[in-house]
Amino acid sequence: MRARIQVREVGLRDGLQLIKTRLPTKIKQTWLKKQIEAGFHEVEISSIVPKKILPQFSDAIDMINYSKRISKCLPCVLVPNLKGFEIALQAQAKKVIFVLSASEAHNLANVNMTLETSLKELKKIIAKNKKNPEKAKIEIIGSISTSFGCSISGRISEKKVLTIVQKLIECGVDEISLADTVGYANPRQVASLVKQVLNLSHQVPIIGHFHDTRGFGLANLVAAVDQGVTKFDSSLRGLGGCPYAPGASGNIPTEDCIYLLESMGYDTGVDLKKMMSLCKLVERWLPNETLHGKFVSSNFNPN
Amino acid sequence: MRARIQVREVGLRDGLQLIKTRLPTKIKQTWLKKQIEAGFHEVEISSIVPKKILPQFSDAIDMINYSKRISKCLPCVLVPNLKGFEIALQAQAKKVIFVLSASEAHNLANVNMTLETSLKELKKIIAKNKKNPEKAKIEIIGSISTSFGCSISGRISEKKVLTIVQKLIECGVDEISLADTVGYANPRQVASLVKQVLNLSHQVPIIGHFHDTRGFGLANLVAAVDQGVTKFDSSLRGLGGCPYAPGASGNIPTEDCIYLLESMGYDTGVDLKKMMSLCKLVERWLPNETLHGKFVSSNFNPN
Repeated sequence: MRARIQVREVGLRDGLQLIKTRLPTKIKQTWLKKQIEAGFHEVEISSIVPKKILPQFSDAIDMINYSKRISKCLPCVLVPNLKGFEIALQAQAKKVIFVLSASEAHNLANVNMTLETSLKELKKIIAKNKKNPEKAKIEIIGSISTSFGCSISGRISEKKVLTIVQKLIECGVDEISLADTVGYANPRQVASLVKQVLNLSHQVPIIGHFHDTRGFGLANLVAAVDQGVTKFDSSLRGLGGCPYAPGASGNIPTEDCIYLLESMGYDTGVDLKKMMSLCKLVERWLPNETLHGKFVSSNFNPN
Repeated sequence: MRARIQVREVGLRDGLQLIKTRLPTKIKQTWLKKQIEAGFHEVEISSIVPKKILPQFSDAIDMINYSKRISKCLPCVLVPNLKGFEIALQAQAKKVIFVLSASEAHNLANVNMTLETSLKELKKIIAKNKKNPEKAKIEIIGSISTSFGCSISGRISEKKVLTIVQKLIECGVDEISLADTVGYANPRQVASLVKQVLNLSHQVPIIGHFHDTRGFGLANLVAAVDQGVTKFDSSLRGLGGCPYAPGASGNIPTEDCIYLLESMGYDTGVDLKKMMSLCKLVERWLPNETLHGKFVSSNFNPN
């Protein structure tokens, strides 16, 4: 039996964050439905953030409600603070990703709080979640942005990231995501940090989130796979970027990521042909956006 | 002291092989000169092949002669057969790369011979080279095309490649190049084959030659680095492709490759700014060609 590696699609969240095109809710829902039909399970479907900041996510609740009608779908929404979590709770969301940043400057720019305040918010979120009846409990990912470097404040020490990881574990998050928000990581750096984080986190699983700004995304993913990470974020056609991380380009393209993992002998559970059809739709929905990725235009590997 | 990894530029050979633009000899010579000034040492400068097949290499002898005037330049020319080698010998070339293919079908399409005949040609070449006075001896790379798969005949077994490696060693080549001509390799496959080849080759150094058809090029390079390979081919702006390997796209972009290796802590000897200036010139010289690579358009890593 092939070992399983899970790919979390973040196109509907990270992917739509920076682009100019506003996709109608109906189209986002079709995207989500087809993504699950192609064999994906966990999908980031929206962000619960103020409408005036990111109007493209003003349909977050509609997306949460719609996602409940799709079987085998584990929808996840981004929340930057307690208020966002409370909205998610009210909407009976299943999973949230809470973001904070290893870079103080990026945390301030991205979620308008100090890192300390972000951690306090997370504690309140977890306390609130604990009071929830068992069935209504929300899975919580603690995501550390700029874990491998920041375009505002430069180098991020491993020690800084490890301290935050420790705090996330103490808070009681269900998973920890290490995000290379700007795409500054290299495979040696990934191997080194991931190894130390896995030593710390033991039972708390790690998610790798890489951007492909310098083309090192897939090499970084392989470095993390080699250390034992089995869950990764990616975005169809390499969409994505952070509005508060200057110079960042898209996530690693989901289709290339899936094809790489399958080629390496891993089972992603994804149907390549169905994923390919969805890629073609995404192309049609976003004709004015820069798309990335090699898989769609290349021929299949006979191996 | 940082460990050294050498990058062989193949843009003037592999890079110009498939594109429609015909670069004037003067421009090729400027390219070569600036490449060496940027800190590169070994550069593939041309192919010695019939004019009617690849007219873009009809100035091979001019390129060899010009290269002798550039200090610190180790020029290398491709030869597909004994006749090509004899021309290289006469022109007092310093180094040649002799190509054969692990895929019988590709060997036939590419050099119009069976693999057996190619190996016989190589033996004659090496015999001829031995008769040469010590000072005039030519360094010989034996390059195995389609080592990781072929778009004509599909899967290539490791056994097949290892048998050819063994024969190249017996013939007495100075270096062996493992070429992923079509870009079918994945990092696991690279690690597995390279490990076995290094076990066989011992004192004969290995060169990794990866195409980026599926975007796995840099990940494959890292996999080979991890096994101990210290020499790689790449092409500025990811130019390249084989006319007889349908579906193959360009080599890994030299600039991304250099930047990755430097980021990982290796010393490539290359001056990034000078390389960048040359990239800009290549863009200007080839306005109608599809160029690749992320480095030129991305901002520098502060790490």
